[in-house]
Amino acid sequence: MLIIDGLQYPPLERTPFENMRKGGVNAVHITIAYWETTQETLHNIALWQRFTRDNADLCYLIKNNADLEKIGVDHRVGIIFGFQNCSPISDNVGFVEIFHDLGVRFMQLTYNNQTRLASGTYEAFDTGLTRFGKTVVKEMNRVGMVVDMSHSGERSTLEAIEFSDRPITVSHANPKFYHDGLRNQSLAVIKALGQTGGMLGFSLYPLHLKDNSNAKLDEFCTMIAKTAEIMGVDNIGIGTDLCVGQPSSILEWMRNGRWSTQKDFGESTSKSMAWPAQPDWFTCAADFSNIAKGLTVVGFNTADIEKIMGGNWQRFFHASFGPAA
Amino acid sequence: MLIIDGLQYPPLERTPFENMRKGGVNAVHITIAYWETTQETLHNIALWQRFTRDNADLCYLIKNNADLEKIGVDHRVGIIFGFQNCSPISDNVGFVEIFHDLGVRFMQLTYNNQTRLASGTYEAFDTGLTRFGKTVVKEMNRVGMVVDMSHSGERSTLEAIEFSDRPITVSHANPKFYHDGLRNQSLAVIKALGQTGGMLGFSLYPLHLKDNSNAKLDEFCTMIAKTAEIMGVDNIGIGTDLCVGQPSSILEWMRNGRWSTQKDFGESTSKSMAWPAQPDWFTCAADFSNIAKGLTVVGFNTADIEKIMGGNWQRFFHASFGPAA
Repeated sequence: MLIIDGLQYPPLERTPFENMRKGGVNAVHITIAYWETTQETLHNIALWQRFTRDNADLCYLIKNNADLEKIGVDHRVGIIFGFQNCSPISDNVGFVEIFHDLGVRFMQLTYNNQTRLASGTYEAFDTGLTRFGKTVVKEMNRVGMVVDMSHSGERSTLEAIEFSDRPITVSHANPKFYHDGLRNQSLAVIKALGQTGGMLGFSLYPLHLKDNSNAKLDEFCTMIAKTAEIMGVDNIGIGTDLCVGQPSSILEWMRNGRWSTQKDFGESTSKSMAWPAQPDWFTCAADFSNIAKGLTVVGFNTADIEKIMGGNWQRFFHASFGPAA
Repeated sequence: MLIIDGLQYPPLERTPFENMRKGGVNAVHITIAYWETTQETLHNIALWQRFTRDNADLCYLIKNNADLEKIGVDHRVGIIFGFQNCSPISDNVGFVEIFHDLGVRFMQLTYNNQTRLASGTYEAFDTGLTRFGKTVVKEMNRVGMVVDMSHSGERSTLEAIEFSDRPITVSHANPKFYHDGLRNQSLAVIKALGQTGGMLGFSLYPLHLKDNSNAKLDEFCTMIAKTAEIMGVDNIGIGTDLCVGQPSSILEWMRNGRWSTQKDFGESTSKSMAWPAQPDWFTCAADFSNIAKGLTVVGFNTADIEKIMGGNWQRFFHASFGPAA
């Protein structure tokens, strides 16, 4: 069975990839920028290129569509670059193609805050897609970079789904009916995603889970079953949002960037800058098999489990990463 | 009589400053960035520093509050740096103080389009001040950088007026009751500006004028008289928005930056990238005396004309450029 993780933010070291290999993960979309400028993002790409070269026994970069064919051929982890914000493109629509040429295949239009493109989920008001936002979505459609609205406001997300000529994704979030977190998604969004061939990746980040670190596997899998009824079983996958191994300074960076003069604790109700503990049935990517088992328990058949664990992402990648037809 | 121009975008050459000297202009707020990145803005500052050093017979930089005392002492033009967009600060609230240290005293939160801070006047929807926008306004208040909302949406402008602890400006625009242009300002905005000690700079840019290039001096001055009744005579000045001598490539840059894939013609109804001709009574900064004469004709007394031509800006600069009390 192919296993693909729709989003992780691993530190630049072997451990997370060794865990992925243990867990049978064949490919992963990793985040390489939040608030990074263009220059800083190029630096991060250079670091990841060197890392994959130096650790070619464990992983490889998926830089073009031909590389997609390698997924699952051996037990190495295929890495796909993505941005959780539009900071890397600055105000330059031409940078979409430049980053696509460098292997970037996902870009969120926002990360919690308002951007030039759209509204983040933490803002009081939601513009929807801005003028520049529409231009950028068109350009992403043209070159084959997936619009990811995981951290966007509802209106912006619905507009992106409607405006984009190609299916989009919410790569790491859960439905609000399961847990009413700020980052989780409304029924309207998941229905619209499903109706347009988009993808929802279920998140294992504790703040997106019912009961957070004490979340139950069966409730998580029941939520997946309910979502499959709403969206269809072809439009869902896993997007763990795993950050295991990152220091708390990185959490502070994600939550505050350089835009804050006071510490912003995001969704953390304890107002803590410590990473929340993962639930015991999914402590790291080595535990992927627990999810597959949980899906069996709630009644999914093998074919559907294969879709959810990786098959749907694989199909979506093939349809999304090349230039528009 | 002191003459201060609340906004110009002169090319980096002697001619516009020679015209200012001919017109009796003692100080001018000049634009040094629209879509420029931090690095590009530093480059522009370096160019302007060299220019003022090389042309010290004609102009000087106003870099600190002590320099404000030089205004009007001789016939040179005091130059004050400003941004018409927030691109230079990128996503870094700390860059507000850095640019203030380098002499920047005005920053628009937006230039027509949505930014991370607020909404531009060309957007379909207006967020008002965003989360980062509020943080930046607080920081501008703290260090003494004036919030300029000339190219912002109405809601964003009203929120900035209300949220800012210090008076703000619309440095170059006219009231909509005179000419219903996209960039001109509603009654609500000019009233709120007046009530909070803010400043409106009347624009001579043809697209902001009734009948554009064929605008009449008496109608322009009548508009000033009506605005004085609404806002008070202490809260108005001139902000010519003169760009005379800039090539059309610069107009294209202002209108399109790097965010557009098709040419955007801004407010130009002729869909032209040529600069609109200035009215014959204000072809360049050498014609400032015509405005003072026009103000006399519509009935202003000498004391009020002195306020409008420069006295109000001078008072506003003194109150605004230093750190918060």
